[in-house]
Amino acid sequence: MSRPQSPEPALNVQGASSIGLGDEDAADGTQHSHRMLSFSDALLSIIATVMILPVTHTDISPEQEFDKSIQKLLATRIAVYLMTFLIVTVAWAAHTRLFQVVGKIDDTLALLNLACMMTITFLPFTFSLMVTFPDVPLGIFLFCMCVIAIGAVQALIMGYAFHFPHLLNPQIQRSAHRALYKRHILRIIFHGPALCFVAAGFSLFFYPASYLLMATVIFLPYVSKAASWCRGRLVGPREPPAHSLEFFTFDLHGPLSKERVEAFSDGVYAIVATLLILDICEDNVPDPKDVREKFSGSLVAALSESGPHFLAYFGSFATVGLLWFAHHSLFLHVRKATQPMGLLNTLSLAFVGGLPLAYQQTSAFARQPHDELERVRVSCAIIFFASIFQFAIWTTALLQEGETLQPSARFGGQEHAFMFAKLALYPCASLLAFASTCILTRFSTAIFHLMQIAVPFAFLLLRLLVRLALAILRALPRLALRPAPTRPAPGGPRDDTCSPLLPAPC
Amino acid sequence: MSRPQSPEPALNVQGASSIGLGDEDAADGTQHSHRMLSFSDALLSIIATVMILPVTHTDISPEQEFDKSIQKLLATRIAVYLMTFLIVTVAWAAHTRLFQVVGKIDDTLALLNLACMMTITFLPFTFSLMVTFPDVPLGIFLFCMCVIAIGAVQALIMGYAFHFPHLLNPQIQRSAHRALYKRHILRIIFHGPALCFVAAGFSLFFYPASYLLMATVIFLPYVSKAASWCRGRLVGPREPPAHSLEFFTFDLHGPLSKERVEAFSDGVYAIVATLLILDICEDNVPDPKDVREKFSGSLVAALSESGPHFLAYFGSFATVGLLWFAHHSLFLHVRKATQPMGLLNTLSLAFVGGLPLAYQQTSAFARQPHDELERVRVSCAIIFFASIFQFAIWTTALLQEGETLQPSARFGGQEHAFMFAKLALYPCASLLAFASTCILTRFSTAIFHLMQIAVPFAFLLLRLLVRLALAILRALPRLALRPAPTRPAPGGPRDDTCSPLLPAPC
Repeated sequence: MSRPQSPEPALNVQGASSIGLGDEDAADGTQHSHRMLSFSDALLSIIATVMILPVTHTDISPEQEFDKSIQKLLATRIAVYLMTFLIVTVAWAAHTRLFQVVGKIDDTLALLNLACMMTITFLPFTFSLMVTFPDVPLGIFLFCMCVIAIGAVQALIMGYAFHFPHLLNPQIQRSAHRALYKRHILRIIFHGPALCFVAAGFSLFFYPASYLLMATVIFLPYVSKAASWCRGRLVGPREPPAHSLEFFTFDLHGPLSKERVEAFSDGVYAIVATLLILDICEDNVPDPKDVREKFSGSLVAALSESGPHFLAYFGSFATVGLLWFAHHSLFLHVRKATQPMGLLNTLSLAFVGGLPLAYQQTSAFARQPHDELERVRVSCAIIFFASIFQFAIWTTALLQEGETLQPSARFGGQEHAFMFAKLALYPCASLLAFASTCILTRFSTAIFHLMQIAVPFAFLLLRLLVRLALAILRALPRLALRPAPTRPAPGGPRDDTCSPLLPAPC
Repeated sequence: MSRPQSPEPALNVQGASSIGLGDEDAADGTQHSHRMLSFSDALLSIIATVMILPVTHTDISPEQEFDKSIQKLLATRIAVYLMTFLIVTVAWAAHTRLFQVVGKIDDTLALLNLACMMTITFLPFTFSLMVTFPDVPLGIFLFCMCVIAIGAVQALIMGYAFHFPHLLNPQIQRSAHRALYKRHILRIIFHGPALCFVAAGFSLFFYPASYLLMATVIFLPYVSKAASWCRGRLVGPREPPAHSLEFFTFDLHGPLSKERVEAFSDGVYAIVATLLILDICEDNVPDPKDVREKFSGSLVAALSESGPHFLAYFGSFATVGLLWFAHHSLFLHVRKATQPMGLLNTLSLAFVGGLPLAYQQTSAFARQPHDELERVRVSCAIIFFASIFQFAIWTTALLQEGETLQPSARFGGQEHAFMFAKLALYPCASLLAFASTCILTRFSTAIFHLMQIAVPFAFLLLRLLVRLALAILRALPRLALRPAPTRPAPGGPRDDTCSPLLPAPC
């Protein structure tokens, strides 16, 4: 028997970092912000996504055609969902910046953060008001008040942290230009609230102008990010001014913390996966009276009625789960999330949030078989966009691979090929399903379900398949070259199979 | 101007651990399990809590009395919520144990974990079937099938990890008794499924026996935990057998990873806080037709109708937020979560999950003023139990403070007093509110709202209040002793104010 080992090391594996750091700060009342940030991420991601529920709960009775009033109702709810999603991601990004400046927290900061969260949760309600009463300025007025309140709380947090400098990020704490920093950060924080203050003023006498200003608040960060990125690709990176290096990390344009991007994404995937089972439990438990009367007491017969719902549920859960898996694999290889990557991630998540809609669409077949083709296509489109934006994150990361990727995943490695295959699976499958519904119109449902069931197995067999494909690619040129091994082709077209992945024949 | 600093260090502060470790493993396809575990925690906590939604969405029309059929409906839904919550926490604890054995993951394990999650999400549906059709054995049969499927997936994960030992926890990896470990762990995993297999058999001819067996599966871990703890307190800790030290950490009775307890709790608090705004957005946006007809187009008048809802929303959000804050402060001082602490935490979270019900209760005043007293009392009771179990975690931790607490929080320190005050605030406030509704029956709503608004300020002023209280306590004995400084009281009653907190006069 070996000497008795202490059980502690095994237990502390996961909690090691937090345990090690917790105690030295407890004495002066400061705490590490890690857990508060995870909680904020979870809260914000759920708020961003949960507004898809009113969209999926829109009741369309079987005899009712897909008429104007229903279309309008659906459109308003989708608009609320998208606006909420965008503004919450903007608020989340601002929150991330803020706590890159504030390194530690104490009780007061934790409470102020909760106040900030509470104000953010109120934003979806103002959107609901806005889209239900587009020509009453109250909705936009409340929205502006909320944004101003959020700005005020953030300014309070900032002011408090600068008043007790031991709470600040060590880099700023040691800096000689602390007052400069403070002014710079406060200016960034007051950007949105100032615009909203003007918008609130306009809402009292000329409300269309306030909608314009609101759109500026929501979209400006995205537009400016996209523009600066395009400019960067076209002209090359702008020469930074002499003293801006110090400011860079706290700027609106610096990269986001990879860990918080992951936490926010996890929250969105988790809530989307769970909303599905909620619908199943609320809608698919048959009524005891129905079972007695319609199915002569046979529960199995009653349940088999809603069989397609269960199939759709498992298909959708698998889709959400595998998209998370692809995202997880992708971010394993990522070192830093630059702004365009963050933007693409937001877009991907917005479509992931739409997946319960896809579930709703495909599970409604049993009731409304007549427009099943459109529904399958909408579902395919949602899955396609959610996955293609993930693929875009990867290609964007490859453009600056030295900065953004881990060395093992850079172009040419085997991990690179696996990553590529994983991310390409869903775009290809959904595109294929979409295309085949155009040809085989009658079997569209079967095709869609086949896709949902086949893709998980494809993921399991992926390593095998990629190895096989690489082996075939390596073997092909040899086979092709054997009949004419002596033919030299110096001016001819370049051999396509000769890629960095295939060192042998080149 | 100081020399230009690189922005990197500041950015990597939060992601440092994951970035530093990520790359060395990427080459052989293994990954750290941290992110997958956070995702699983988020998923499980949301599934555990989301079944409160059907409870809060139970429609009770104003003219309808609280009659038998409504009571039965509510009771079944609350039963589904509680059963789901308990079984999901059991599954979560098993998942935590499992990934204390498996240290690293690869793609196959990540996919198997997703399959496990998918099966767990199906459990609430089987509960819904069970409580809607208590005398049809199909529900319990499906439940048993689910548990067996979960067991099978967990056994697959275990088998896979033992087949590729580099995925195991380093301690087991190096151990000479790896085969012994494997058998021991598989035996623990097959405990529940074996019971469920028998229960599934019984469900075909004598279903009451299967309910009994199911209850065993759900409650056995809790009962055995509570029993072993009580025995430990009464008789003293049992002498461990000679070779059991090595097994200890993978036993059902070892402490849980603190980080995962935090992540699971965060998920519950976050989803509870967010469910509230969902109700607001779905129910409290007035109908455009109503506004035109009833309120002659005045949106402000229509909204002020549902004023109590907003007040109730802010009150409830503050309650959830502050309970999270207390939990966060508590776990800052905790080093390890022992089993009784985990059990108390689960009980506290189950009541936190009931808070949307409290919101629903208090926001229904506008419609049904006649039974407002009962509703206020139910809300007070929910808040009281959620907070008193947090308090119990703290007292339980104090019983073994050497093992469970950080040194700074042990008995006698100032942090200790703050902690005590923070955790006692909600139990005291809710008890006070409950008591005053018994005396001042007519003002019960006002009292409840006053409590909800006053407590956040109490938290803000807590440090001040505790310092004041300590100062008064220190000053009191001096004042009390001054009139009779010469009286000796050797056999008299001990001075109550002489506690370890007050070193001066003792």
